Amino acid sequence: MNNELLKRIALINNRISELKFGQQPNELYEPIRYIMSLGGKRMRPLLVLLGYELFKDDSDSVLDQAIAVEVFHNFTLLHDDIMDEAPIRRGKPTVHEKWNENTAILSGDVMLVKAYGLLLDAPGDLKAILKAFNDCAAGVCEGQQFDMNFENLPTVAEETYVNMIRLKTAVLLGFSLKLGAMLAGASSTQAESVYDFGVSIGIGFQLKDDLLDVYADQEKFGKQVGGDIISNKKTFLLLKALELADADQKAKLDHWLAAVTFNKMDKVESVTAIYNEIGIRQLTSDKIDAWFAQGFTSLEALDVSEGRKKPLIAFTEYLIDRES
Amino acid sequence: MNNELLKRIALINNRISELKFGQQPNELYEPIRYIMSLGGKRMRPLLVLLGYELFKDDSDSVLDQAIAVEVFHNFTLLHDDIMDEAPIRRGKPTVHEKWNENTAILSGDVMLVKAYGLLLDAPGDLKAILKAFNDCAAGVCEGQQFDMNFENLPTVAEETYVNMIRLKTAVLLGFSLKLGAMLAGASSTQAESVYDFGVSIGIGFQLKDDLLDVYADQEKFGKQVGGDIISNKKTFLLLKALELADADQKAKLDHWLAAVTFNKMDKVESVTAIYNEIGIRQLTSDKIDAWFAQGFTSLEALDVSEGRKKPLIAFTEYLIDRES
Repeated sequence: MNNELLKRIALINNRISELKFGQQPNELYEPIRYIMSLGGKRMRPLLVLLGYELFKDDSDSVLDQAIAVEVFHNFTLLHDDIMDEAPIRRGKPTVHEKWNENTAILSGDVMLVKAYGLLLDAPGDLKAILKAFNDCAAGVCEGQQFDMNFENLPTVAEETYVNMIRLKTAVLLGFSLKLGAMLAGASSTQAESVYDFGVSIGIGFQLKDDLLDVYADQEKFGKQVGGDIISNKKTFLLLKALELADADQKAKLDHWLAAVTFNKMDKVESVTAIYNEIGIRQLTSDKIDAWFAQGFTSLEALDVSEGRKKPLIAFTEYLIDRES
Repeated sequence: MNNELLKRIALINNRISELKFGQQPNELYEPIRYIMSLGGKRMRPLLVLLGYELFKDDSDSVLDQAIAVEVFHNFTLLHDDIMDEAPIRRGKPTVHEKWNENTAILSGDVMLVKAYGLLLDAPGDLKAILKAFNDCAAGVCEGQQFDMNFENLPTVAEETYVNMIRLKTAVLLGFSLKLGAMLAGASSTQAESVYDFGVSIGIGFQLKDDLLDVYADQEKFGKQVGGDIISNKKTFLLLKALELADADQKAKLDHWLAAVTFNKMDKVESVTAIYNEIGIRQLTSDKIDAWFAQGFTSLEALDVSEGRKKPLIAFTEYLIDRES
């Protein structure tokens, strides 16, 4: 990532470290400080700032609203990690592991409240901003429910899968950018173009996540390559493989999906070999490219100068090229 | 309850039955329709309407904002019932029992979002309304955490207990009334008097709940009398008994608090007998009267006509006299 973007992330992290959230009872607020201090890409608040900078310069004036989105995102992580029984988040114990489930539920709840709180001093049309946030927040919950529903289905169609990741991941990226635009006083047409851009690159971003899980360079990835294969997660790669497999490949996939005891490395290698035979890597890469290209079409339609678009384009290129 | 109040509750129930909340996925929205249809006193939305009617007549114009508070309250029930492992709510299975914990977490989350959504079309100063709601919502979470903390303490002081019920229960009643006042364009001084009234009667209301658990007429109560005694719940009655017991009474209380296997009726009868010896019933009744009286002092300070205060006073008298 370039220095200009890193500077903004430092600003975001600095402001996050200053936030108090609340004092008493400590059992409620300590887990919030914990999860917020674990880091992460800070992609969503960065997108708020970059959305703002499409229209105005002083993006540091909307830092708290940018952080509202990060607090919301971390609220969803607290609750999703309970639902997914995930023990580790960013290399550290999840809140429900370090404390307990009740703490993760209740601290998560108060984080959602605090996310609204950080939005309330926003410049601009508060009602329109909160309506957009509410649509986004309900969408994220819907996406999580669809994702959980998928666990109990043998397979789902590509369109159904893409709708799930649109809700679970992409609408929040779209909202982040749109929030920045709204805070900077963009017209509703401009805000919609920015939102469409964000949703398209959000879908591309999640498909890239699915791809990296299988095809990342283990040295650079930071997580276990093949984790989704081991857990039978219904990723884009698995769903396309199930769709396109011939009888022999389908039988092999079904064998691994049904296996209860297995050597993890064997399973990852064997399923990856089937993906390779079917050409899943290229197919997924092409789909990712198509979603990012659709995003750029929305961005081109936006009537602001090329100079103003530069930081956002630089960040998007970082997302396209990322290896972890 | 008088007919005028019952008419407003019918209006509230009718509007709740019309609300869609959301459509897809059904797994997310069905539990919301379920919990909202279980009924309950609808005290909080009624207080919004009564707070509004202190200043203006057309309270049916703020029905959706009144219901926002009921949706928020039911969100807290969904999550609290998980934390308390409660199997039954209003005589029916709780959401985490009927579905599962994940459903109760996620449907609860989206209810909190929908509660904000119902507030967004409020007349008046949206930012001030949402700031008051946010303070209240964070307070309710803090109260729930304090309540859970108390489970692990041998006892807590009266002041500490009252602060917990103030946060967990009373601030939402205070906010409900204040919201009504704000929606009707009350001054901030007026809104504060109304809030103070609501918080005081809210504390009285919760202490009455504690009292009824032990001293209600079983025929009229609807729940198992003595449920709090059986579960060792740290109610006002138990805390005062622990504080005021002599050595012999303290030993008996400690015996029942430590008992693992016991006849439930024996425990309820024995602990109630100790309460009777110490005079806990009168002491609690006096405390309840004092909190309601403090509420009426705040209401007297409010500069609106006696006629306008009548419905709210009638409802408060119903709360004072209630037997279930």
